[in-house]
Amino acid sequence: MNDIVLSHQHLKKFASEIFLKIGCPEEQAKKAVEVLISADLRGIDSHGIARLSGYVRLWEAKRINSTPNIRVVHESPSTSVVDGDAGLGLVVAPHAMEIAIQKAKVCGTGWVAVKNSNHFGIAGYHSMMALEHDMIGISMTNASPLVAPTFSVERLLGTNPICVAIPANEQPPFVADFATTTAANGKLEILQRKNKEAPEGWIQKKDGSISTSPHELKDGGALIPLGSDREHGSHKGFCLGAWVDIFSGILSGANYGPWVPPFVSFLAPPTDPVGAGIGHFFGAMRIDAFRPASEFKLHMDNWITRFRASKTIEGQEKLIIPGDPERESESERLVNGIPLNPKVVDDLKALADKFELKF
Amino acid sequence: MNDIVLSHQHLKKFASEIFLKIGCPEEQAKKAVEVLISADLRGIDSHGIARLSGYVRLWEAKRINSTPNIRVVHESPSTSVVDGDAGLGLVVAPHAMEIAIQKAKVCGTGWVAVKNSNHFGIAGYHSMMALEHDMIGISMTNASPLVAPTFSVERLLGTNPICVAIPANEQPPFVADFATTTAANGKLEILQRKNKEAPEGWIQKKDGSISTSPHELKDGGALIPLGSDREHGSHKGFCLGAWVDIFSGILSGANYGPWVPPFVSFLAPPTDPVGAGIGHFFGAMRIDAFRPASEFKLHMDNWITRFRASKTIEGQEKLIIPGDPERESESERLVNGIPLNPKVVDDLKALADKFELKF
Repeated sequence: MNDIVLSHQHLKKFASEIFLKIGCPEEQAKKAVEVLISADLRGIDSHGIARLSGYVRLWEAKRINSTPNIRVVHESPSTSVVDGDAGLGLVVAPHAMEIAIQKAKVCGTGWVAVKNSNHFGIAGYHSMMALEHDMIGISMTNASPLVAPTFSVERLLGTNPICVAIPANEQPPFVADFATTTAANGKLEILQRKNKEAPEGWIQKKDGSISTSPHELKDGGALIPLGSDREHGSHKGFCLGAWVDIFSGILSGANYGPWVPPFVSFLAPPTDPVGAGIGHFFGAMRIDAFRPASEFKLHMDNWITRFRASKTIEGQEKLIIPGDPERESESERLVNGIPLNPKVVDDLKALADKFELKF
Repeated sequence: MNDIVLSHQHLKKFASEIFLKIGCPEEQAKKAVEVLISADLRGIDSHGIARLSGYVRLWEAKRINSTPNIRVVHESPSTSVVDGDAGLGLVVAPHAMEIAIQKAKVCGTGWVAVKNSNHFGIAGYHSMMALEHDMIGISMTNASPLVAPTFSVERLLGTNPICVAIPANEQPPFVADFATTTAANGKLEILQRKNKEAPEGWIQKKDGSISTSPHELKDGGALIPLGSDREHGSHKGFCLGAWVDIFSGILSGANYGPWVPPFVSFLAPPTDPVGAGIGHFFGAMRIDAFRPASEFKLHMDNWITRFRASKTIEGQEKLIIPGDPERESESERLVNGIPLNPKVVDDLKALADKFELKF
């Protein structure tokens, strides 16, 4: 079946109605919608409107609090720890990033660890908040355990993404937003829908042997850290995922490693939590705390222009600068709409029925 | 030929004599030796005493200043930019990390970008300086361009390592120290000496096609970012290398990308520099700017213990915690000495002759 194309305005209106129905205050619903639909616009379909019914189910299970009291529980001049009060990560994360930006205005840099939160949408949204202030933005989050470290058969880490957003002058910003695994979970979902095999090096079976089935995680298999195997540096991907887990989970007082609660309501959270909810970590660095921003941004233009002009391997059109594909998707989808898988549309229709809304 | 085993005391004494001969002040020579030999002790042979003659040749070529005036040229409460005055990176880097630690004492975190420096030895040494202060240490550096970004045939980035060092309580610290390529250049040197082929995914030919020759870089080939190819996430390895390059080179005012000067004296630096020397970036984060250090370190113990106890793939003895192999090497080599390739020993003997010293 073909995708169904809907405008971002349509999706935003519907998502907003849903967030209001579950009790979010108006301003928070608005922010949640903006973060959620930025994923659909930027082409990261697994993190956008397709997740809406999942958030609702977690709220129904009383694992998401729609009226959180998000508060700073510890701080120093350049740092804060934020308790998200089990709120939507879509709301807690931009709140925390805003604190990082305010700290950076005073101190040069600001660093905020968050506990007691939930899935925060795409990391890119939060990092990019720093750009308009001539700051570098950093965001990371831990996530439900789906990844087996090198040599392990156990799912001990999430896909734990990192995003670094860096402003330029005439060039668009550098925005590197990536899961610390060989492939993000969303890529498996695409293969499942298309009934295709995954390449070797993305997934392992529950005994740690090679698998190419995108359904393997249902049978106890695991995703593999960036690098695919020890010989190709999967221990480095494990280092990255662990770094994100410790900054997001242990600095903040959230859960970490295998204790991170699942994103889906049909799986119960661990009964022996080591912290509160899931954790995030944010940073904002004022460029002019290092050198004049105008000077820095001209050099960023030079960096991007030089890399973009690189001679390429035969058959490859160009070197892709981090952030290019997502920006191109956004330009296109703002105009032409967002293509949704029919299963996602059915799910949204069921959600509309539940709350007596129209989709 | 077999390796020749020498004590770290012997190597330290000799390296100290050499640094004094090229005019380093006594305190700086002492620090340079400590950083240099920490690489040999930790098993990163490519970054230790084997590089000593290279530093001397760069000094002879007037590309290293043995009496630098290392100074802060820009700062904010939580940041500094340091001009290394073309000094040994082995001296400039710990100086800059010390500034980051002092900033963190006051502000919660400290962040220092360095320009006008040279090769700084192993990243691990500098990050680990933070541990005794109950801080997290971060270090990164850009490096001579040897790496082709995904789809490119040009060497535009260095192997650009990152190290994150995190204290624990009874467990040893978590120390992740890794090049952002599939394999570090030192691994190629080992294969060259052993006359062995490299696995596919480490190196490409000058046209971007697959190579398994560890000599390929001499023929215009390149190292590959972590991930090995696009399908396995090499664009993410490129993101990491680019991040390190921009933080180390552009925030500081150093060279970046293809303009980073080569580490070897027989290759001239670019005639159109975009900054000064090579760049580094350091961070120190006080744990108790986030939560009580004692509490954090108990959770780190729990994290490490849980991961170390993981069930492993058949045939694999254990999950390796980042920092384990280097620490084990250090314990062993402190007692039993440091094995040196005979070619390295010949090189050191030639260096001794040049300065009328005994090796």
